Amino acid sequence: MDPNMTPHETVHGDVSNKYDIVVIGAGPVGLLLSTCLARWGYKIKHIDNRPEPTKTGRADGIQPRSLDLLRNMGLKPAIMAHEPAKVYEVAFWDPSSTESGIHRTGTWASCPSFIDARYPFTTLLHQGLIERIFISDLEKNGVSIQRPWTIKGFKTDEKADPEFPVEVDLEHVDGKGKETVRARYLFSGEGARSFVRDQLKIGIKHKDPIAHVWGVMDGVVKTDFPDIKMKCTIHSEHGSIMVIPRENDMVRLYIQIASSTDKDWSPRKTATEQEVQDSAKRILEPYSIEWERVEWFSVYPIGQGIAEKYTLDHRVFMGGDACHTHSPKAGQGMNTAFLDALNLAWKIHHVQAGFADRSLLESYESERKLIAENLLNFDAKYAALFSQRPPAAKDVAAASQQSDKTQDSRGEENQFIKTFKESCEFTSGYGVAYDPNLLNWSPSHPAQSNLINPSGHKLRTGRILINSNVTRVVDANVVHLEQEIPVNGSYRIYIFAGRPSSSSKALQDFVESLKKKSSFFSSYLRPDIDSVSHHERHNPHSHFFTFCTIFNSKRGDVEISRDVPPILARYRDHIYADDIWDQRVPDATAAAHAKMGLNEEKGGVVVVRPDGYVGIVTSLVEGSGPVEALNEYFGSFCTKKLGEKNTAHL
Amino acid sequence: MDPNMTPHETVHGDVSNKYDIVVIGAGPVGLLLSTCLARWGYKIKHIDNRPEPTKTGRADGIQPRSLDLLRNMGLKPAIMAHEPAKVYEVAFWDPSSTESGIHRTGTWASCPSFIDARYPFTTLLHQGLIERIFISDLEKNGVSIQRPWTIKGFKTDEKADPEFPVEVDLEHVDGKGKETVRARYLFSGEGARSFVRDQLKIGIKHKDPIAHVWGVMDGVVKTDFPDIKMKCTIHSEHGSIMVIPRENDMVRLYIQIASSTDKDWSPRKTATEQEVQDSAKRILEPYSIEWERVEWFSVYPIGQGIAEKYTLDHRVFMGGDACHTHSPKAGQGMNTAFLDALNLAWKIHHVQAGFADRSLLESYESERKLIAENLLNFDAKYAALFSQRPPAAKDVAAASQQSDKTQDSRGEENQFIKTFKESCEFTSGYGVAYDPNLLNWSPSHPAQSNLINPSGHKLRTGRILINSNVTRVVDANVVHLEQEIPVNGSYRIYIFAGRPSSSSKALQDFVESLKKKSSFFSSYLRPDIDSVSHHERHNPHSHFFTFCTIFNSKRGDVEISRDVPPILARYRDHIYADDIWDQRVPDATAAAHAKMGLNEEKGGVVVVRPDGYVGIVTSLVEGSGPVEALNEYFGSFCTKKLGEKNTAHL
Repeated sequence: MDPNMTPHETVHGDVSNKYDIVVIGAGPVGLLLSTCLARWGYKIKHIDNRPEPTKTGRADGIQPRSLDLLRNMGLKPAIMAHEPAKVYEVAFWDPSSTESGIHRTGTWASCPSFIDARYPFTTLLHQGLIERIFISDLEKNGVSIQRPWTIKGFKTDEKADPEFPVEVDLEHVDGKGKETVRARYLFSGEGARSFVRDQLKIGIKHKDPIAHVWGVMDGVVKTDFPDIKMKCTIHSEHGSIMVIPRENDMVRLYIQIASSTDKDWSPRKTATEQEVQDSAKRILEPYSIEWERVEWFSVYPIGQGIAEKYTLDHRVFMGGDACHTHSPKAGQGMNTAFLDALNLAWKIHHVQAGFADRSLLESYESERKLIAENLLNFDAKYAALFSQRPPAAKDVAAASQQSDKTQDSRGEENQFIKTFKESCEFTSGYGVAYDPNLLNWSPSHPAQSNLINPSGHKLRTGRILINSNVTRVVDANVVHLEQEIPVNGSYRIYIFAGRPSSSSKALQDFVESLKKKSSFFSSYLRPDIDSVSHHERHNPHSHFFTFCTIFNSKRGDVEISRDVPPILARYRDHIYADDIWDQRVPDATAAAHAKMGLNEEKGGVVVVRPDGYVGIVTSLVEGSGPVEALNEYFGSFCTKKLGEKNTAHL
Repeated sequence: MDPNMTPHETVHGDVSNKYDIVVIGAGPVGLLLSTCLARWGYKIKHIDNRPEPTKTGRADGIQPRSLDLLRNMGLKPAIMAHEPAKVYEVAFWDPSSTESGIHRTGTWASCPSFIDARYPFTTLLHQGLIERIFISDLEKNGVSIQRPWTIKGFKTDEKADPEFPVEVDLEHVDGKGKETVRARYLFSGEGARSFVRDQLKIGIKHKDPIAHVWGVMDGVVKTDFPDIKMKCTIHSEHGSIMVIPRENDMVRLYIQIASSTDKDWSPRKTATEQEVQDSAKRILEPYSIEWERVEWFSVYPIGQGIAEKYTLDHRVFMGGDACHTHSPKAGQGMNTAFLDALNLAWKIHHVQAGFADRSLLESYESERKLIAENLLNFDAKYAALFSQRPPAAKDVAAASQQSDKTQDSRGEENQFIKTFKESCEFTSGYGVAYDPNLLNWSPSHPAQSNLINPSGHKLRTGRILINSNVTRVVDANVVHLEQEIPVNGSYRIYIFAGRPSSSSKALQDFVESLKKKSSFFSSYLRPDIDSVSHHERHNPHSHFFTFCTIFNSKRGDVEISRDVPPILARYRDHIYADDIWDQRVPDATAAAHAKMGLNEEKGGVVVVRPDGYVGIVTSLVEGSGPVEALNEYFGSFCTKKLGEKNTAHL
């Protein structure tokens, strides 16, 4: 395959039963994967063994970082059109020492202000509605879910068919229809019970040996409990429940029915709807609660588990609940699934488009398995944080402040504050951090230019880009910089250009260096570059990258034809003025530069992966250094030798 | 009819050809009117003489205040899903004195920061897309537009049928289908050529005798003109054009083809598509422009005109372009139409629901005709502001500041700044101001309590409520207070309750006074009050009003069961903590109180009309005074005698 082939051309010839990918399961992980790949032009076979999308119940929590992602995919308006509940605070209720019944011991913010989130709340919406939003987006790209179909077998044979090495047997659930298809990749988003995982004989490791039986009930209630519209953790003499508000006046209650630490533990222990309601009534005393309608009720045993591998051959992959299960308490299931899918989507794309070595796919498991392990560890830690004692109001207040301090007034490390901050970062999704590797620069990365990692910058490789507001020059729109490039599968290269008067030579040199034959820019130009519409905003030169240029200047003072060299000026919708005041850096002239910790005069270059995580940061100086540093970085995982150094070796 | 009848019951009996209202024309004015009335339960016949909604061209500018309104109706997400262009700045281009061709003389903000707007931009979206959003909302309420049908005649006879006095003859445009229906009201949203207006023999007054022929072209262009994504006013030696960006990479050009001040003036003068493009090319020199596609092209003569009456009998009404025509330059047509419709909708509702005297309907013409006259005056003034000289950059900068000053550095009144501010307020829609009448309190209003109009408050009767952010107590959501009550046809009564410790007695007395038999509260209770769902958020007691209570307190410190008397606590989704910092009042503890100019300790009561305009402001003090003041206010236009004073007279 031509490495510079555009994605739309990747499947050709007599290919009626050949697909780029076969996706099993139309839950959050499978749907987000398909949505990305369908938008980028791949041919998809997507099946699900249910006759229709989720009707009731199941996951419902969208964390702040996931909402950013859905917005970046253009799906947030559809989410918000359903008027989901938004959880800004969590309330804690405990038995009262003086009176009978429960009393509130405190509340804390879901996403306190020390996290610089666009949407400091958790969005609660029924999984079925979320699935339908993806399905309708897929339909716009010609993909529909084939239902109710199931997978009956698969095998990979690279020798027999190096292009479409995976053979997959599919069957209608009634056993009447059968189909055998060939694919480049197979993905299991089947959930906890995964046929693919079983066939691959991949084991599940149980981090925490404790298992629980949970009862969960969605319904409409009438109650005088004052926090029924907040997320609540309620402990009482009669047991514990968790309250989660929902759309359409609904509320979800989680109740722990049995635990493997119980003397009479049985994973088969169950409870009726009536028993759960009676139990909830006792727990909520002195408040009353009555059900007007129960939408969904389920009892299920669940233990913490993590798949030992996410893939064996880098052709058949798994993600979501097929790889990790845990308690529903922290509301992380769907969010972790989304990020599994996004992580895999762009890596498949970069391999298939000929940008990256096939070995890029190895980083899917190494990056995402670490996150799942962190999730499982967190799950246990989060419970422990509250099992000891309710947090004092002053601790929560101190911990919620907009600062990086983890020391208390006596200068001592406060363990509560530290754990609190970590858990807020974790539950918000802003805490996801990938370890150093070829994608996430660290001092041990092959790229060793001394321009890399300039002193003072506040970005962290493997973490998402810091949010900032800037003014788009062409139309004076105030925009959210981190949202400006859609999820288009491209690397996002932000050139913070400082003051035009200080950096014009550096910017000029940057562009001259891009033009060199061996640069990452010149090496991955679109083959159809001469016929690209002048309205193309994001990928006029290449699907490998999109450029943004941000000046420390008032919008009206930026004149694109004068201040921006032609290659960067071609991205005319991605030229910005850093002229919007920000409460977090009130004294800065250029708030976005300042928030990133980049020099406001001289700027710097920030490379962000297609999934939004920072890859590398370099200085912006005169000469070829900055582009050479990027060549070194990209060259470490790209298909071509990049940069002066490397070509000298050829 | 029972005055407390709910709107859903207003049509009954043998009513197959009887309607609450017949609406002619499915443009912005007719659609917004129908959408409101359909939501409030009225039976509607809505016809349009076109076979389908607007396909191309026509109005496209949604001003900031209209976007607030559409959001308040829940329609903003659907607007934004179309990814409209947003105009934040207007650029001015003039002939250069030194070189050939045009050069930019300056830019100014569409909605500068001295206007406290949620959305400081104009939203540009094709009228057809906007129409479809309303049509789809109407369909949810069982109303579909009957097309292509036209009106052939109508007459009003209150004696023959006092309930449905208007008889309307409708006909399919092919003349084959005919229908005669009876209605309580008839509304003409027919546009500039109105059959209804002609039949009523209502004349058009021409404020400015000058008429123009305009050419307008929507299309996709390729150009190096740097401001093609901004709104531009371009003067050159070769003529003048106005540039307006659109969705989907389109741009609209307005070009003045002839003026009645020309020597060879003819309203029939025209121009071809090619002539307009050639003319644009000359005007834009030294920049180039080429058309890739023309979506719409039209040449039409238009003069300023205003209908002498908006109604004759308060049964047959007109609104929108049927009442006022003017140049398209300020982008006000659709916005004025929306507000015409909203103004009429709630007044019809309050009369039909039995809340207000029928004379309330007289205020439709008096309020909206004044706005149309202001629009026509503004239209002329706006042109004059720029015909003299381009504004100096420093004047625009000074004028855009966040202050009420209209004086320059020498302390002199600066006419430019004054006119600039007025015009920004006008074009943003934030400047709409209704004159004093029974709805908009002034010292000459019959309500004369000395609690009315407390010193220091910054609200202006007849103007919209000032925007503010607060925290909703039940779910800790940070919300936009002015948006919290949807367009539900109800009066919005905001009780700013100051500090709970200072105002608890006053709040208690307020509720006790509401309970009195002759209060506006007790007089307009819902007849079905005992069967109202406890999930009803806005109208548990009455469709006449919705209450909001706002405390100067941290959210966590408000305990509804302790701090809020039961009647107000019933609106549990409308209890707020005024604890969100605001950049405009950085030193305030309670920013919303401070922005309204209400005492942060003691609060105050703000009554906002169902269309969002402030009606009256009173102090919140102990005793029955505040409710008595509201009784006096409402009693001036309601169907019942309200308050102690009035009942004493009976």
